[in-house]
Amino acid sequence: MNTYPVKAFGTEAPTADLKPMLINRREVTSRDIEIEILYCGVCHSDLHTARNDWGGTKYPSVPGHEIVGKVTRVGSDVTKLKVGDTAAVGCLVDSCRTCDSCHDDLEQYCENGFVGTYNGKDKHLHTHTFGGYSQKIVVDEHFVLKVPSNLDLAAVAPLLCAGITTWSPLRHWKVGPHSKIAVVGLGGLGHMAIKLAKGLGAHVTLFSRSADKEKDALQLGADSVIISTVSSEMDSAKGKFDLIIDTVPYVHDLNPYISTLKASGTLVLVGYLGPLEPTLNTMQMVVGRKAISGSLIGGIAETQEMLDFCGKNNIVSEIEIIKMQDINEAYERMLKSDVRYRFVIDLASLKD
Amino acid sequence: MNTYPVKAFGTEAPTADLKPMLINRREVTSRDIEIEILYCGVCHSDLHTARNDWGGTKYPSVPGHEIVGKVTRVGSDVTKLKVGDTAAVGCLVDSCRTCDSCHDDLEQYCENGFVGTYNGKDKHLHTHTFGGYSQKIVVDEHFVLKVPSNLDLAAVAPLLCAGITTWSPLRHWKVGPHSKIAVVGLGGLGHMAIKLAKGLGAHVTLFSRSADKEKDALQLGADSVIISTVSSEMDSAKGKFDLIIDTVPYVHDLNPYISTLKASGTLVLVGYLGPLEPTLNTMQMVVGRKAISGSLIGGIAETQEMLDFCGKNNIVSEIEIIKMQDINEAYERMLKSDVRYRFVIDLASLKD
Repeated sequence: MNTYPVKAFGTEAPTADLKPMLINRREVTSRDIEIEILYCGVCHSDLHTARNDWGGTKYPSVPGHEIVGKVTRVGSDVTKLKVGDTAAVGCLVDSCRTCDSCHDDLEQYCENGFVGTYNGKDKHLHTHTFGGYSQKIVVDEHFVLKVPSNLDLAAVAPLLCAGITTWSPLRHWKVGPHSKIAVVGLGGLGHMAIKLAKGLGAHVTLFSRSADKEKDALQLGADSVIISTVSSEMDSAKGKFDLIIDTVPYVHDLNPYISTLKASGTLVLVGYLGPLEPTLNTMQMVVGRKAISGSLIGGIAETQEMLDFCGKNNIVSEIEIIKMQDINEAYERMLKSDVRYRFVIDLASLKD
Repeated sequence: MNTYPVKAFGTEAPTADLKPMLINRREVTSRDIEIEILYCGVCHSDLHTARNDWGGTKYPSVPGHEIVGKVTRVGSDVTKLKVGDTAAVGCLVDSCRTCDSCHDDLEQYCENGFVGTYNGKDKHLHTHTFGGYSQKIVVDEHFVLKVPSNLDLAAVAPLLCAGITTWSPLRHWKVGPHSKIAVVGLGGLGHMAIKLAKGLGAHVTLFSRSADKEKDALQLGADSVIISTVSSEMDSAKGKFDLIIDTVPYVHDLNPYISTLKASGTLVLVGYLGPLEPTLNTMQMVVGRKAISGSLIGGIAETQEMLDFCGKNNIVSEIEIIKMQDINEAYERMLKSDVRYRFVIDLASLKD
């Protein structure tokens, strides 16, 4: 298969900085869309993959799965978009398209494994996939999203991961005007969870460990804030919530949050993958039919639904734009939670 | 409030045997139904309460919450049943009737605490409640169930706890002809889960630690049996089930079962209340939107629905009838799982 080189930023090893490199993109096939990347959000997964925190990273690694840009070429069978249109790509660039999950528009749960936008198994080039820290990307049209024209394009980028990751559970658990929901943690995911849940008309509470997040949370639309380290505040929240979206990316005690669920309520983990400690006590789960679930990003149709919803409701992410060359410093700041609330790379800087 | 004495069987202390005693029942108020108890199932909770295994047992303790009998008196406002009708009482005899859960026919999740049929807080007599190991019981008509006339009455008794405990999650998670469900553990709850799920048209698999349960499971209607200690059998079940009803009453590793859930599937705990060990790993929950929930018995309307369903589909429990005087021996046999699958007390023996 023919390829062509594009400029990118990536890393050769877990401990190495990201640096300029060239990667190959495939020539556009009949079903492909080529996108000139304008902006790419910086997700915690980018950092974890670059540094091999989860194992399995293939090098060179080019992260980035919150991609927006302009269509520059389309294959002969493409109908979704045309040259010049604005387009977006999220965490998925392929899946088997034949299993039950794929048939149900749940490509993120593809039974044969979806292809991640980076560090995935590239079916065309038989290498691993390279993400959005690059000039251009070539993607099957099924996995390309349309972007509402009224939104700030840089601030749209984080919707493709932080947005859909919180949107999907809000929709799956049918959040609406009568829902009382809570969000644990105010970061990239948490701030989108607040905005999207408010957009859906829900009553939204933020659980935070630090009182200094309160002002921000209220400005983002939260109706109230509970400081989770103050036991009297936690006690007063008992039995209150239909759904809790827990965005915290490290291990933490879920038991106090479960007690704030109503009967039949659910706590959804979208941030932490690993063993749960301290151990979960099933008592209050049984006596209140309370559930713990996980949720992973969202399917393509659901991502389009979320983008359209954001267009209608003027919802975008809170961002800080950086140059591609500032990515290593941005990672260090992310580790200190020193970002409100998402870095977005201006890929014009890659031309420098 | 006026009371009258009835013969019962109960215990005065955690380590004492159950023995004959007299307890007081209230005189029938306008909304009450008096039932002459004919049969009472023997639930593991009876034993745990009698022996104070969970703490909080009030003595003397008279267990029993799988009650069927004949209506002998009704209050002036009672419309549900009349003298001579067959009636049943399950785990609940009262609740606040005003909270959201009660309004939603989920009295078992009453926000102000339901009144258990035994060891509950008796609102009329201001003592604790006494269960079905007795000649008669007086219950508000809202908490009394009608019994289909075509079913064997002794074998109906266990439906009031083992039946509804497995019926409620089957209904809440919408099990039907296209569902693939699994049941963990073949005891009082497990055997009812198989029968009810088959009645709903589902494909049913039993997970069991011992191969000697296979024949029974298939006879009860299971489509297949997986021996959970054989790793190749567990591996072949990966991603198979929409719902798993886990009836095991002691702590056990949930992680291998979660891997047998389909994406968006749920494992429901109905048997084990306590800390989960070994610790749960959220990885496969997040990457497959898999949930763990608990579930507690069922509401009154749902219990009536279950009884009506059992009447239509000729479903009852598999039982061994015992005399009231054999209860201590029955408890010892239950502890050894030496019952297929539920003891039911013939209360006629209490007259001896």
